[in-house]
Amino acid sequence: MDWNELYSSRIESMGHSDVVAMLKLAERPEVISFAGGLPDPDTFLLKETREMFEKVLTRMGAAALGYGPTHGITPLREWLAGHMTRMGRPTQTAECLVTTGGIAALDLICRVLLDPGDRVVVGEPAYLAALHVIRSHQAQFVGVPLDPEGMRPDLLEVQLHELKRRSLRAKFIYLVPSFQNPAGVTLTEERRKEIVAMAARYGVPIVEDAAYRDLRFEGQAPSLLAALDPQVIHINTLSKVFNPGVRIGWATAPQPFIEALALAKQGQDQCSSTIGQYVAHAFALEGLIDRQRAKAIAIYRQKRDVMLAALDQYFPASARWTRPEGGFYTWVTLPEDMDTQALLPRAIEAAAVAYGAGPSFYHHRGGKNHMRLSYSYVSKSRIEQGIQRLGNLLCSLDR
Amino acid sequence: MDWNELYSSRIESMGHSDVVAMLKLAERPEVISFAGGLPDPDTFLLKETREMFEKVLTRMGAAALGYGPTHGITPLREWLAGHMTRMGRPTQTAECLVTTGGIAALDLICRVLLDPGDRVVVGEPAYLAALHVIRSHQAQFVGVPLDPEGMRPDLLEVQLHELKRRSLRAKFIYLVPSFQNPAGVTLTEERRKEIVAMAARYGVPIVEDAAYRDLRFEGQAPSLLAALDPQVIHINTLSKVFNPGVRIGWATAPQPFIEALALAKQGQDQCSSTIGQYVAHAFALEGLIDRQRAKAIAIYRQKRDVMLAALDQYFPASARWTRPEGGFYTWVTLPEDMDTQALLPRAIEAAAVAYGAGPSFYHHRGGKNHMRLSYSYVSKSRIEQGIQRLGNLLCSLDR
Repeated sequence: MDWNELYSSRIESMGHSDVVAMLKLAERPEVISFAGGLPDPDTFLLKETREMFEKVLTRMGAAALGYGPTHGITPLREWLAGHMTRMGRPTQTAECLVTTGGIAALDLICRVLLDPGDRVVVGEPAYLAALHVIRSHQAQFVGVPLDPEGMRPDLLEVQLHELKRRSLRAKFIYLVPSFQNPAGVTLTEERRKEIVAMAARYGVPIVEDAAYRDLRFEGQAPSLLAALDPQVIHINTLSKVFNPGVRIGWATAPQPFIEALALAKQGQDQCSSTIGQYVAHAFALEGLIDRQRAKAIAIYRQKRDVMLAALDQYFPASARWTRPEGGFYTWVTLPEDMDTQALLPRAIEAAAVAYGAGPSFYHHRGGKNHMRLSYSYVSKSRIEQGIQRLGNLLCSLDR
Repeated sequence: MDWNELYSSRIESMGHSDVVAMLKLAERPEVISFAGGLPDPDTFLLKETREMFEKVLTRMGAAALGYGPTHGITPLREWLAGHMTRMGRPTQTAECLVTTGGIAALDLICRVLLDPGDRVVVGEPAYLAALHVIRSHQAQFVGVPLDPEGMRPDLLEVQLHELKRRSLRAKFIYLVPSFQNPAGVTLTEERRKEIVAMAARYGVPIVEDAAYRDLRFEGQAPSLLAALDPQVIHINTLSKVFNPGVRIGWATAPQPFIEALALAKQGQDQCSSTIGQYVAHAFALEGLIDRQRAKAIAIYRQKRDVMLAALDQYFPASARWTRPEGGFYTWVTLPEDMDTQALLPRAIEAAAVAYGAGPSFYHHRGGKNHMRLSYSYVSKSRIEQGIQRLGNLLCSLDR
């Protein structure tokens, strides 16, 4: 069979996946990898998780092992509605859909909204897995630069206006408002209000990906975009405050849109793991999500501090980086003539250290003088060691 | 937000989902529902499953709760390769991809192969969830009728030939060769060989969905299509011989195609449940899949016998039905002027019994004088009761 002549244009357009390549890099034990965005297993409440599995299987029996409803099991949807309400977005159970992780939620949204060639607004830079999903639906990207306060509303308006002038309209604006992946920056309250009002004015839905929002180390959390406007499509995951291995995420949106997502989910995976949902619900109900979050914040805050101190100490004076108030990432800007993509193989070979090369995070594959450094997974001593190695390599080039 | 003007043409084309509607029907406790295809929870090895969760979480710790590789965890892929090899298709680990259930595997195949308007060959009738997935990728259906020996090769060749004459080619042929859903029929060995050879001749891949194959009550199993030709794309699920709640399925195919599926999976859900995969592997390794299969076969065989006997006793003489040698379903053919779709609300209201109406299983929404009856979930006494009620209703119309 000649597969190449059978492939869809979608798969042709995808080319290769940076995520797969990055995860492969992380596998060699001698390499200190700041490339992936993996949670630290030390944040997991292992004993409690084991107890919840035991409890659910004892209490629920076979009901926890059968098929579940496509929308998700009712008790978990109820809990999610309460959780969203507590976060400032008054929510009915019918406005929540359980998904198989956060990326699956974005995939459903793309299925529901995108035809090939449709426009989607993304940050410059943006979360690479989100770019992969949107690209797989053959959308055209409209990029809007970020600065230390998040996506720039003035440049967003230029793009929305230009589309309107051409009688076009973006299908959605994809945003990670808090501790953005990869830039680590957080959209200010003022900008949140401005962007939500602008999106409503132009009739363009916002997709708010709040994957890291709960991991705030310091300072005051700005409003959820969905709290500013209930029309905002909110997607989220329990991967950071429970664990990624159960694959539980969710979407909260107006009910008609949730119904469209559920229809699409029938063609994606029918239902998310039933046992995973029951265990997640039991975990949440016993206050364990709060406990794990507190533990995670303490661990990640320390790691961020270690990384920022090491960057100060070892990186060349010409480098700049963001100082995230939460989440997993800092974003490094090197002099314009640096090429992090070209440098990566050498960093791995010569310095045994890996990072996310800038172009992976740009829809146009530019941004070659940037790199994403994740402090979430690597141990503190290895963070310092790895940043030293990488800093030495960069200093050797910086003359 | 006016969602309706934002929806993709894909979601417009999907209209509504028969699966969702059917699962809803099954919820009212007074209704005896033969509509769904749910496994009997009595087939689950509950105690052993609980022990496996305990064992995996104790032995693996946090590693069972983190992200896993997109292709699936290596020990499970190795086990699947051995399993496929034992089923007559010599398989390397690299030829297996773990998926979030069987439907997710079919969705990945569609992502990799289908552009809107592409042709896909399906049975008449065909598995309704598969029709839903393929429809969601905006393919055009090419239907080939079944008879008691499965899909008719002569009519398949007519279609493939006609497409070729028009310089077209189907992207794949979707088949459930054993205990077909919904017809309950099994493709004979002779037809398997004929269809596999024909597909190779026309350069059209076969997708073999073997979801029910392991549940054979009697008689000799014909060859796996993938055993007759390793180019066949094999998809399968542990939902029937472990449980559906962990959402573990897989695809076996030539390695280049598996790599394309893995790329697509990055945009579907990144990875399947890690804990689910480790538990499934532990369950398989301890011989529990074999034990559950034996238990399931015994239970489903009895249920099939009860249903067939009740059909003999209570259904009108004008009705015909298939006698499945395994799986979950029998397929009833009523006189041409009957309309099972129109009758369904009355069956539920007046007789408190539900079934799968014929048109749900036809890409062209015809076949209104057929119904699918599932004996898998309902208890034996309720099977007899439900068939009696439904038979009485049909007899009252059959004059």
